Amino acid sequence: MTSSDAELLADRTPLPSDLDSRLREHLTFLIEVDQLKTILRASPLAAADRRENDAEHSWHLALMVMVLAEYADEPIDVGHTIKLVVVHDLVEIYAGDTPIYDTKLGESQQEREEAAADRLFGILPDDSGRQLRALWDEFEARQTPEARFAKAIDRFQPLLLNWMAKGGTWRTPGVTANDVRSRKAAIGEGSAALYDAAMQLIDEGERRGWARTS
Amino acid sequence: MTSSDAELLADRTPLPSDLDSRLREHLTFLIEVDQLKTILRASPLAAADRRENDAEHSWHLALMVMVLAEYADEPIDVGHTIKLVVVHDLVEIYAGDTPIYDTKLGESQQEREEAAADRLFGILPDDSGRQLRALWDEFEARQTPEARFAKAIDRFQPLLLNWMAKGGTWRTPGVTANDVRSRKAAIGEGSAALYDAAMQLIDEGERRGWARTS
Repeated sequence: MTSSDAELLADRTPLPSDLDSRLREHLTFLIEVDQLKTILRASPLAAADRRENDAEHSWHLALMVMVLAEYADEPIDVGHTIKLVVVHDLVEIYAGDTPIYDTKLGESQQEREEAAADRLFGILPDDSGRQLRALWDEFEARQTPEARFAKAIDRFQPLLLNWMAKGGTWRTPGVTANDVRSRKAAIGEGSAALYDAAMQLIDEGERRGWARTS
Repeated sequence: MTSSDAELLADRTPLPSDLDSRLREHLTFLIEVDQLKTILRASPLAAADRRENDAEHSWHLALMVMVLAEYADEPIDVGHTIKLVVVHDLVEIYAGDTPIYDTKLGESQQEREEAAADRLFGILPDDSGRQLRALWDEFEARQTPEARFAKAIDRFQPLLLNWMAKGGTWRTPGVTANDVRSRKAAIGEGSAALYDAAMQLIDEGERRGWARTS
């Protein structure tokens, strides 16, 4: 169980005391992560007039990995890549979302997220916590084909939402089309085809005035 | 592309015409599925005062499959099981959610969902559409260990939310604790341990008056 004294969501309605203790730790964690559904991202949904939350985003990435796997530059294990995207934003439950164009928040991001990972994965039995932590570490390090493709999809997905919103976060004050392009470099580390498509979307968006030229 | 004349979400902001045509179909589908984030389920969130949507639910199941795989009664391919839960509710974009205690809506559920699957997966290039359709068919048929465990998790997850809400949908008018128990039988087809835990939660909920005794 967690070493922190902070209250857990499950403490509000404690699970029956006669549950198997290992399963109880698993379920306590699975209740705690419900909070991912409340962490808002900057991206607007295409299907409704509100911002996307991290849980929806993570599901969308999982489906995108399945549908777009054929565009990966290296062979990938699709099931493993999905695991990476399912866990990749969990630390934001405690660390919050860091919008990609917020350079000030970005400076403290790694430190905040490492602390959040210790706390969150510490709720689980040790072996289970180590398994999920290893997936998060793999995603962050981008040293495997699966992690590179997962990151590419994580950077590609908001492009679709911003395109549908005729700009979306591309219209963030102070952000130019070239800023958008430079934040999308990670797509090219996983998929040349998706990187080319990303540049087509940004180029066309800039032509239409959805992103500032300078 | 789809044989239906119905408008697609992507038609509201057409993708650049110079995109590769196969990728364009993939992206059109991936924009269309944004609607899963707007399909509300009956279950209340644990972390916020609102109902859960299908995209959040699907993400939660994916993580639960990873964390609870050790409780599966048969060996399962975890990555494949996650694929099943990622796609299992997609048809609700067109067919809507069918609450488990709504027996009237339940009568037409299969027919509505089959038609929705034809329409939705038809947006994709044929081979991609067949792949996703096969996963959905596998989930529905429950003939593989992965499909049985995926269904078990699909039935187990709302128990956690209803527990946290001190009843939640267990309080649906006309529903008794025994109705809740009978709807959870599918958990036992995938995991005896999770079925036992489900019964502990329902038994304790009934004792506390969160579900009606008769």
